[in-house]
Amino acid sequence: MPETPAPTRRYSYLGPAGTFTEAALRQVPEAVDQEWKPVANVGEALSDVVSGVSDAAMIAIENSIDGGVTVAQDALATIPGLQIIGEYLVPVSFVLVARPGTRIDEVSVVAAHPVAYGQCRAWLDERRPRHQHMPAASNVQAVADLLAASGSGIDAAIAPPGIERHYDVEVLAEGIAENPDAVTRFVLVSRTTPVGEPSGADKTSLIVELPDDRAGALLELLEQFATRGVNLTLLASRPIGDRMGRYRFVIDAEGHVRDERVADALLGVKRYSPRVVFLGSYPRADRIAATTHDVHDDDAFRDARDWLRTILTGQDAEAF
Amino acid sequence: MPETPAPTRRYSYLGPAGTFTEAALRQVPEAVDQEWKPVANVGEALSDVVSGVSDAAMIAIENSIDGGVTVAQDALATIPGLQIIGEYLVPVSFVLVARPGTRIDEVSVVAAHPVAYGQCRAWLDERRPRHQHMPAASNVQAVADLLAASGSGIDAAIAPPGIERHYDVEVLAEGIAENPDAVTRFVLVSRTTPVGEPSGADKTSLIVELPDDRAGALLELLEQFATRGVNLTLLASRPIGDRMGRYRFVIDAEGHVRDERVADALLGVKRYSPRVVFLGSYPRADRIAATTHDVHDDDAFRDARDWLRTILTGQDAEAF
Amino acid sequence: MPETPAPTRRYSYLGPAGTFTEAALRQVPEAVDQEWKPVANVGEALSDVVSGVSDAAMIAIENSIDGGVTVAQDALATIPGLQIIGEYLVPVSFVLVARPGTRIDEVSVVAAHPVAYGQCRAWLDERRPRHQHMPAASNVQAVADLLAASGSGIDAAIAPPGIERHYDVEVLAEGIAENPDAVTRFVLVSRTTPVGEPSGADKTSLIVELPDDRAGALLELLEQFATRGVNLTLLASRPIGDRMGRYRFVIDAEGHVRDERVADALLGVKRYSPRVVFLGSYPRADRIAATTHDVHDDDAFRDARDWLRTILTGQDAEAF
Amino acid sequence: MPETPAPTRRYSYLGPAGTFTEAALRQVPEAVDQEWKPVANVGEALSDVVSGVSDAAMIAIENSIDGGVTVAQDALATIPGLQIIGEYLVPVSFVLVARPGTRIDEVSVVAAHPVAYGQCRAWLDERRPRHQHMPAASNVQAVADLLAASGSGIDAAIAPPGIERHYDVEVLAEGIAENPDAVTRFVLVSRTTPVGEPSGADKTSLIVELPDDRAGALLELLEQFATRGVNLTLLASRPIGDRMGRYRFVIDAEGHVRDERVADALLGVKRYSPRVVFLGSYPRADRIAATTHDVHDDDAFRDARDWLRTILTGQDAEAF
Repeated sequence: MPETPAPTRRYSYLGPAGTFTEAALRQVPEAVDQEWKPVANVGEALSDVVSGVSDAAMIAIENSIDGGVTVAQDALATIPGLQIIGEYLVPVSFVLVARPGTRIDEVSVVAAHPVAYGQCRAWLDERRPRHQHMPAASNVQAVADLLAASGSGIDAAIAPPGIERHYDVEVLAEGIAENPDAVTRFVLVSRTTPVGEPSGADKTSLIVELPDDRAGALLELLEQFATRGVNLTLLASRPIGDRMGRYRFVIDAEGHVRDERVADALLGVKRYSPRVVFLGSYPRADRIAATTHDVHDDDAFRDARDWLRTILTGQDAEAF
Repeated sequence: MPETPAPTRRYSYLGPAGTFTEAALRQVPEAVDQEWKPVANVGEALSDVVSGVSDAAMIAIENSIDGGVTVAQDALATIPGLQIIGEYLVPVSFVLVARPGTRIDEVSVVAAHPVAYGQCRAWLDERRPRHQHMPAASNVQAVADLLAASGSGIDAAIAPPGIERHYDVEVLAEGIAENPDAVTRFVLVSRTTPVGEPSGADKTSLIVELPDDRAGALLELLEQFATRGVNLTLLASRPIGDRMGRYRFVIDAEGHVRDERVADALLGVKRYSPRVVFLGSYPRADRIAATTHDVHDDDAFRDARDWLRTILTGQDAEAF
Repeated sequence: MPETPAPTRRYSYLGPAGTFTEAALRQVPEAVDQEWKPVANVGEALSDVVSGVSDAAMIAIENSIDGGVTVAQDALATIPGLQIIGEYLVPVSFVLVARPGTRIDEVSVVAAHPVAYGQCRAWLDERRPRHQHMPAASNVQAVADLLAASGSGIDAAIAPPGIERHYDVEVLAEGIAENPDAVTRFVLVSRTTPVGEPSGADKTSLIVELPDDRAGALLELLEQFATRGVNLTLLASRPIGDRMGRYRFVIDAEGHVRDERVADALLGVKRYSPRVVFLGSYPRADRIAATTHDVHDDDAFRDARDWLRTILTGQDAEAF
Repeated sequence: MPETPAPTRRYSYLGPAGTFTEAALRQVPEAVDQEWKPVANVGEALSDVVSGVSDAAMIAIENSIDGGVTVAQDALATIPGLQIIGEYLVPVSFVLVARPGTRIDEVSVVAAHPVAYGQCRAWLDERRPRHQHMPAASNVQAVADLLAASGSGIDAAIAPPGIERHYDVEVLAEGIAENPDAVTRFVLVSRTTPVGEPSGADKTSLIVELPDDRAGALLELLEQFATRGVNLTLLASRPIGDRMGRYRFVIDAEGHVRDERVADALLGVKRYSPRVVFLGSYPRADRIAATTHDVHDDDAFRDARDWLRTILTGQDAEAF
């Protein structure tokens, strides 16, 4: 009698196979042997999660070569019911690929997504000074264009490493981008769910609207974090879009909402801001624990509450 | 069979009868018909409370003519087991008194506490340009000196209004001080006791030591209040005394420790400071309610906590 | 004898003709009848300016549909010798176009840049629920794909308004994007040049690195602006890229570097930050003057300096 | 023919000879062999300076046993034309003196200023548990009372060290105060004069009124100092006196008005505050130099100005 198979989970990601987003998804242990659904953009990926078509979506959120980062931030700010559950870093490097048998001195026309092209242009200018750029819709589409259009005069394509596993191409050169240390930050997004336990090295993401557009409003917001010793790793203003001059802030804070200092900061932010969206507390990709001073650790919060309780019940008015 | 009389409460105050401190004590309804114990200085008054000799002590705490304000602040900072339970304001005005029958143009030598003399000197200089000042240990002692030393050449004394009820003197002139609106602030101090309920117009007094003597340490302390919308009505640095350059701060904040925003600010201060002394939450003498913005009232605190609870249990990650 | 013609100025922009960037360039009076050079991306546009190939470049800097905003911010942060000299807003709206004679109920396959597609998808889902999306490299490339590939099955393209002036297409529908009020912000960039005079409604752009990654470092930066009453209209953290966790900030401040309060804030920022790049002071696209309080206007700065001079020369130590 | 003698300078101080204030004046090299005028209180001392009767006055300004500290602060805040030119510290210790030949076991009644008595009471309680306190108007007056009133039953007096040089008394015990490290801070006050050169270890004193009584107003004031790295050594709120709830602040800042960071902070404070009184920049009594970070030293200020000049003239827009 056949066993009932475990239910398959579905993950949406910016496809097709071979993108940096796919590389991020490969870092998720739970996604192994599950269904991966390539989509055309961030909006589709998040729609899949909201509608239940997929269980989670991997999207680029910062410093992306695949583009669309502010689109992702705005989407998280405005689509209800989403939560970040993981963070992943993918080194951004590029290879030059061609049809098998092509030599580099035969390359004249190079297909590439414009951003990837910008990063690799210096390398190309040096080796093939008279080359021509043929823009492509994505890093993978550049390869598809190379192969599909053998008659169109494309000789090579700029693509992510590993592309040769998916397409019949040969790697002519590796590491051709200008900045060899570049990384893109991705987040895995699910529907709203109870927040997990802290891992000891976590991040908390928020969207916060300022009460109004006065000098100092942002400062007051940041003081809510600073007075609790909560460091920020991302802060970006985004126009709200209803009219110029109104902004929301995309914020990544060190720590987990189950850490006392982060919870207390969120309470302060919530009281202060006309609108706050909690986007999730999740393990940091870089595994770096927050540098918390003693005065901001959980014990300090407990000690302070004990002290206050003593005051309210009058047993001992002094605190050493 | 005789009734058991209600136990008498004892109040220490800077005496003798006739001082401004006594005038403050007359404002306390509970002190009527109880035992009043005049003492020589703030230290004695507070010792009486600590040792149980008295139930409470009235002491000047700000802008005092009777002197000793910083002494009072330092005493509250260092003597454990004390709590402020009330605040009282006494208008500071002075009268010129003399033995019955004296005319003002007969006045040459005026007994006065030096501070009182300073406040009334302009008046005396105008009416009696050639007068002489005979310093006295207190405003009431000046009158005692006038009467006791009839042979000593004192013709008049500067004293608080109402002194003629206690001594056989005649008032030659009223309102002779330079600033007719001056008031002194007094506090009633008891042993540590459970904090009462808010009256709607309260103050909370604290002594706070800074973590160290770096630029910005005080700023961080004040942000603990500002981020919760808690206004301060008194802030004074006092040298700690163990070595120059270390300071504690005497702080009066608007509101009651049972107000959410004040409790939250105290928790922040407690975590931040190496030493905090809670001196009490008590009704303000001026009955002016704190001007709290919506974002800092108790409802805002409850709403924020509800929101955080929702996040932790995962029912709804968004907040509008 | 022929007149010597005025030298032609050259402007680089994200091409081809028909992009939103071109629409921004059309707003520049000085660019009329000059040479316009379409380029493939922001990097090329700025390279043209640095190398002298062009006199100026128009690039999207915030909320762009054409993509590449963070790329533009990073480029301005790292390429020396550039300066922003103007700001322009372009409404972001889309039209659906097809080959002449096509009816909307014949549309099945729609070419579109993924971001544009995301913005117009709701409209398409309603009218053509079974349509297919064919990604294109840009909004204009979608139209080129439509026309070039008559045999490829593309029936329509999403494009910017006015595209019919450049291509032989027919507009099937206007205003098909979800947010009818969206705008993209562009800046005109030249080589470094003396800063112009204030227009009365200006912005100043900066790139600022924080001294280190401690809680409160950003707060201290923002206080440099707040204490001078300088409001910010853009604040975005960008990873510096040498290692994770180091950030630079892209800042737009209200006002002109020739305004006293802005100059003073810049001096404070310069002292505080290990690296500051001044990107320019230029007229705001929205013509909204900064809301300056009296204490932050130029007169207040002059009065304060006069007062300080008096102190140093000792003529009068008091200030009313 | 006789030489014209150098003109004599006159110094007012809280007398008579033997007070702690006199001890402070003895620390002033310029005051040696000049005329010393004892006065009864701070008001008289400052009046002497304003009217030209004296060239300077020594007054207690912090932690005073002689009393009147807040009176001194208020006087400096309200009397125009005064400037602090020096700061002096006097150890506060007490001796017990008696008429020659008296033994300590004969002492029953002790004359003492109430504050001095409070500090020495523990010592007396231990040695002479049944002693009585006879209040005196000042520490020196206690000795005068002892000697003048041989019939009045006073057996001993609490007095400052050195009193035996001025009166015919014998020292029964030294160092009888509770806190052997206590010091009082005095300032030497003259009429307004050009500010001197920095000594390298200076203080600057100010009186500042807040713009209004809102939460955060004080915070904004302190940010003016913090953003320039200027540390405060004294901060005290004082009621302005026109009505309750309005405060001025007495501020001592590290550094000299001729230091760039202090001058810049004063400019910021001046713009911010409705009323600022500059009270002087003068060498610190403790000779401790301000701990200035690199970003706040004079070079940093010059560098920043050079950078701004470059921007305005357009030679080089970048700063490393």
